[in-house]
Amino acid sequence: MTTTTVSKISDHVGQDVELKGWCYNFRSSGKIFFLQFRDGTGRVQVVYSKGDLSEEQWEALQSIRLESSVILSGLVKEDSRAPSGFELEGRGITVVQVAEEGYPIGKKDHGPDFLLDNRHLWLRSERQWAVQRVRDQIIRSTYDWFQENGFVKFDTPVLTPTSCEGTTELFEMDYFSGEGDETKAYLAQSGQLYLEAGIMSLGRAFDFGPVFRAEKSKTRRHLTEFWMMDAEGAYVEHKENMEIQEALICRIVKDVMEKRAHELKVLERDVEALAKVQAPFPRLTHAEAVAKLRELGSDIGDKDDLGADDETILTKQYDKPIFIEKYPAEVKAFYMKRDPENEGLALNNDLLAPEGYGEIIGGSQREDDYETLMKRIAEHDLDPEPFQWYVDLRRYGSVPHSGFGYGLERIVAWVCGLHHVRETIPFPRLINRISP
Amino acid sequence: MTTTTVSKISDHVGQDVELKGWCYNFRSSGKIFFLQFRDGTGRVQVVYSKGDLSEEQWEALQSIRLESSVILSGLVKEDSRAPSGFELEGRGITVVQVAEEGYPIGKKDHGPDFLLDNRHLWLRSERQWAVQRVRDQIIRSTYDWFQENGFVKFDTPVLTPTSCEGTTELFEMDYFSGEGDETKAYLAQSGQLYLEAGIMSLGRAFDFGPVFRAEKSKTRRHLTEFWMMDAEGAYVEHKENMEIQEALICRIVKDVMEKRAHELKVLERDVEALAKVQAPFPRLTHAEAVAKLRELGSDIGDKDDLGADDETILTKQYDKPIFIEKYPAEVKAFYMKRDPENEGLALNNDLLAPEGYGEIIGGSQREDDYETLMKRIAEHDLDPEPFQWYVDLRRYGSVPHSGFGYGLERIVAWVCGLHHVRETIPFPRLINRISP
Repeated sequence: MTTTTVSKISDHVGQDVELKGWCYNFRSSGKIFFLQFRDGTGRVQVVYSKGDLSEEQWEALQSIRLESSVILSGLVKEDSRAPSGFELEGRGITVVQVAEEGYPIGKKDHGPDFLLDNRHLWLRSERQWAVQRVRDQIIRSTYDWFQENGFVKFDTPVLTPTSCEGTTELFEMDYFSGEGDETKAYLAQSGQLYLEAGIMSLGRAFDFGPVFRAEKSKTRRHLTEFWMMDAEGAYVEHKENMEIQEALICRIVKDVMEKRAHELKVLERDVEALAKVQAPFPRLTHAEAVAKLRELGSDIGDKDDLGADDETILTKQYDKPIFIEKYPAEVKAFYMKRDPENEGLALNNDLLAPEGYGEIIGGSQREDDYETLMKRIAEHDLDPEPFQWYVDLRRYGSVPHSGFGYGLERIVAWVCGLHHVRETIPFPRLINRISP
Repeated sequence: MTTTTVSKISDHVGQDVELKGWCYNFRSSGKIFFLQFRDGTGRVQVVYSKGDLSEEQWEALQSIRLESSVILSGLVKEDSRAPSGFELEGRGITVVQVAEEGYPIGKKDHGPDFLLDNRHLWLRSERQWAVQRVRDQIIRSTYDWFQENGFVKFDTPVLTPTSCEGTTELFEMDYFSGEGDETKAYLAQSGQLYLEAGIMSLGRAFDFGPVFRAEKSKTRRHLTEFWMMDAEGAYVEHKENMEIQEALICRIVKDVMEKRAHELKVLERDVEALAKVQAPFPRLTHAEAVAKLRELGSDIGDKDDLGADDETILTKQYDKPIFIEKYPAEVKAFYMKRDPENEGLALNNDLLAPEGYGEIIGGSQREDDYETLMKRIAEHDLDPEPFQWYVDLRRYGSVPHSGFGYGLERIVAWVCGLHHVRETIPFPRLINRISP
């Protein structure tokens, strides 16, 4: 008998197969026992008839509790009524472990704190399983797209010697203190500056790893530890930078719709909305966005960044992601290049996801002139010393270059249609939570 | 005229193309100018004749310094004498930026401290470029192999509430102290325990991210921040666990040999040695390895772990990676399952790379019985409280399961044939270095 997985049972219609996994749910009806079986790759119903089993195996079935681990065998049958399209006629069952009584996650509504306290078990619930499978697909599509488009993975460091952008939202720690020369280290918020060094060797590169923000904001869009993907390209200018972002996001959504259709169904995601994510995305300047927002009732100022509420209002006007480009330079980071047609504007962009989800990407062309960059560092009251290596990139073979970063959890939340980013990562870290 | 990259010039033989990159080297010989051009995807020689260029362009060529950024055009010609197999007949040149005089990295031998201080520029050297391209391929092959074999990416946390394995080599920091309830956080050394929760939902999963060890050892095999890949599978037992490791390593080496052949040549890697990396790998028990080492002159004790010198001596006896399995349980981690045939041994394995490289993987079957696991935690003098969630996995649907972790930098060092892991990661962190 073939041992297989739920994801592959369509290859075995009319055959007896063995499956290894867990009992997700069950109900008994006299001499028939319905077992909802899951094995990590999917879920299928197995129907046992008392007459087909030995007394011992029938007894074993009766002893099962939720989440018990089982190895079973059965005949694969097509069944158009079944959500998976298949059903097994049960032949045998081995209970690997009878789960203890009182599995904490039930069908009743639990509060978020209870669920997060039991995150190690909550992950098994079908919705949480589906979210992690979609997350996995988004990661894969990102790697695939970059591979096909000449970007090399370049792992930037987490431990950094300084607060690069002068922000105060950094986690700080001692780095081998007590060794004579006490040093502080900071957990990186982005690998961008290091990636800029990488592309001067590799042409195009991306990083993808955890970053950290000691932000005390408690919102549905913030985690203290989250996964960021930064991409950077030499000789890529502002316009092409946005085209790269657009192509990447279209690819991610297309792949998830094709390869994780079942998971989107589990999540009851409106796939019609996702199907509209097609290039080209609308492009608004910051000034145009501000004007539009005021029409919609916002009191946003000329030089304000868009707040979460603004993003929600604005993105509900469109059925695709939208680019907001060319923000007032003075409110943006020192490394952004200015628009040659208007020195007051940065050659930057945000990308806002539709349906109220808001910012998922921030990007910009980078200042590539040494003197100008030094001037910006001074204007931003930053200590130039820790940036020596960074400005070196402008002294030796500087090139026009651009890049962007996406927040993985925000993309997962949008694609899955989730309200809060805490469900998008296996073990979320919030200001009041670092366990389990 | 087509704009392309060095990696694609074979598609354009007999055509004029435009390339964007940097001047890696040059020499002039009267009316001929030889430019070694690189663009991140590869390197090619461009030969200019004074007669073919305008006076202005010829002057621009003369002004070039090492690492200047240039956009050039030329006719692609096959040239069997050229290392790349191609050469360009130069047609035009635009110097984007003339690099400053005194580019720090020259042809002369620099000491490691100088090179690491200039890591942001050293990365452009051809050997360093090749190492990063091989690293990228190893990462890609890992993702590809796991994707093809049903493993889902599952991102385990870096910020953790406790020292899971009771080690003292953890980086510690304040997590939102001054907020009333002061909490410590620790940077994870491995995602394994979290991954065990993941597979109870997903069946098979892997993580791949930075981990941290505050080890004060200053060896050629240690970094304080490095990339670790952990994989775990439900219903996978010890023997299959080793087969998975074997298949993964074979795939990585095969892909690098096929897809990064040029880079291995740049690194002067002995590819004959890599070609021998074929399954099956020899399997020795720890006891057999100890006996063999003693024959070879080592004074290793019955219950000792293999030291770096032991690994070097032993792996030089084989031309393939070797498994060392079933270590004395008492010197191994609490979560390892014991060998049912000999309770004194763990169902674990290390995988040692040949040519003296030593340990690249550690793995084991995990203890899946609740009572036994609680006993082990007590035997190891660990506080059971922080492990409550972990032991829950044995209370609700426990299954036999196994996993392993590989150290990316050690695999890169071995595949590239490098002496020290510091060259394998873009910005190495050592006990005395966190910059640039």
